[in-house]
Amino acid sequence: MKKIVLLRHGESTWNQENRFTGWTDVGLTDKGLAEARAAGRLLKQEGYDFDVAYTSVLKRAIKTLWTALEEMDRMWIPVHHSWRLNERHYGALQGLNKSETATQYGDAQVKIWRRAYDVAPPPLADSDPRIEAGDPRYVELGSTGFPRTECLKDTVARFLPYWHSTIAPAVQSGRRVVIAAHGNSLRALIKYLDNVSDTDIVELNIPTGQPLVYELDDELRPLHHYYLGDEEAINASLQAVANQGKSGA
Amino acid sequence: MKKIVLLRHGESTWNQENRFTGWTDVGLTDKGLAEARAAGRLLKQEGYDFDVAYTSVLKRAIKTLWTALEEMDRMWIPVHHSWRLNERHYGALQGLNKSETATQYGDAQVKIWRRAYDVAPPPLADSDPRIEAGDPRYVELGSTGFPRTECLKDTVARFLPYWHSTIAPAVQSGRRVVIAAHGNSLRALIKYLDNVSDTDIVELNIPTGQPLVYELDDELRPLHHYYLGDEEAINASLQAVANQGKSGA
Repeated sequence: MKKIVLLRHGESTWNQENRFTGWTDVGLTDKGLAEARAAGRLLKQEGYDFDVAYTSVLKRAIKTLWTALEEMDRMWIPVHHSWRLNERHYGALQGLNKSETATQYGDAQVKIWRRAYDVAPPPLADSDPRIEAGDPRYVELGSTGFPRTECLKDTVARFLPYWHSTIAPAVQSGRRVVIAAHGNSLRALIKYLDNVSDTDIVELNIPTGQPLVYELDDELRPLHHYYLGDEEAINASLQAVANQGKSGA
Repeated sequence: MKKIVLLRHGESTWNQENRFTGWTDVGLTDKGLAEARAAGRLLKQEGYDFDVAYTSVLKRAIKTLWTALEEMDRMWIPVHHSWRLNERHYGALQGLNKSETATQYGDAQVKIWRRAYDVAPPPLADSDPRIEAGDPRYVELGSTGFPRTECLKDTVARFLPYWHSTIAPAVQSGRRVVIAAHGNSLRALIKYLDNVSDTDIVELNIPTGQPLVYELDDELRPLHHYYLGDEEAINASLQAVANQGKSGA
């Protein structure tokens, strides 16, 4: 039996401001840092240890990982970064306030953009400065390959090659893996692992900063999954996530 | 012309307590963290950027690197860890107060242990709990390979294979490299690069948290080196380092 741990980053400044973030590289709030520390302490207390970590190229995930590893006294393990673990690109919505967007387009449309499997938000124009193709993190994408927008299906399509080529072989070789990433890149992985339908994935939310353990068989089929934290903390975090896209939030 | 940047970690809790640290894994003080932040800001302000970082498996070097990279907005670059970049192992002196040791053995003996090229401090006994061969960082060393003590010559001998196999090829391929390490592992590298004699290396000190730039030709022979910080800060840091081993300090 293999185990992997998934960790969604703690609260970011744009979570707090209720803005669509996507590939925008914003930092953690003090609350987000505290969530990351608590996650590290919990993992250590429950006897978890890791040989290798995977994360995105966005600082809110990296800082969450670093902070948890510091709590676990495992700052020296190899950490691999890939844009393939980034949050879903939110297209032209990036930077907009979620409540304002909901007021303008309606809760239903925003929920579709946030959660529908194959409907992407409006794309960035080719001239949009939010296309960061010159950023060294994204040089391999070039300006044509840099995403203008993504639906979750797109995120699945660019995450899974990294899972198959890099993370899955590490898990299969017996390495203890933690993946520190984002709401939608983790939903992409869970959809694949648990074979969640395109419809059911809409309702699947992942709380911030709560270690989520997947137990897998030798072919990496899920046997069982559970959060390490107590139910109350997880429900509070889930409620906060669910409320973010509503106009009244 | 190639450039590499060497960065000695900021003040650690045992620097502050004036104790021999070696492979003991102690953290930074608030002053050490501030030094690391200042180093990152200075590097950014002077237009430095990095493609890859190398550091030890000890948290005072890793935290210094992470903190500097965070200031530079380069948290996502690859970071490689190796015990070969660790501080010199200080043998049975690890944990002892430097002033007390100097009072007991004399300033001259302590200076020899601290700085002589080929005289190692008294070794750990095979039963010493400070032999951390079970630590996953050191598993490849086994209990027989785990150092009992080191002189600088020993540190050079275990650092250089990593330089030749891993860091030098990265520099030669044009990658911009930062090495965040320790007083003696950086002295080991400088001794090699600048071909410093066994005698002269005794007097070479490296200030904490001050980015040291080496410009190298295409065969990685040094052309020139300099600190980025202002002279006053560097001299103050050097003076603090030089005073640490004295009985009156």
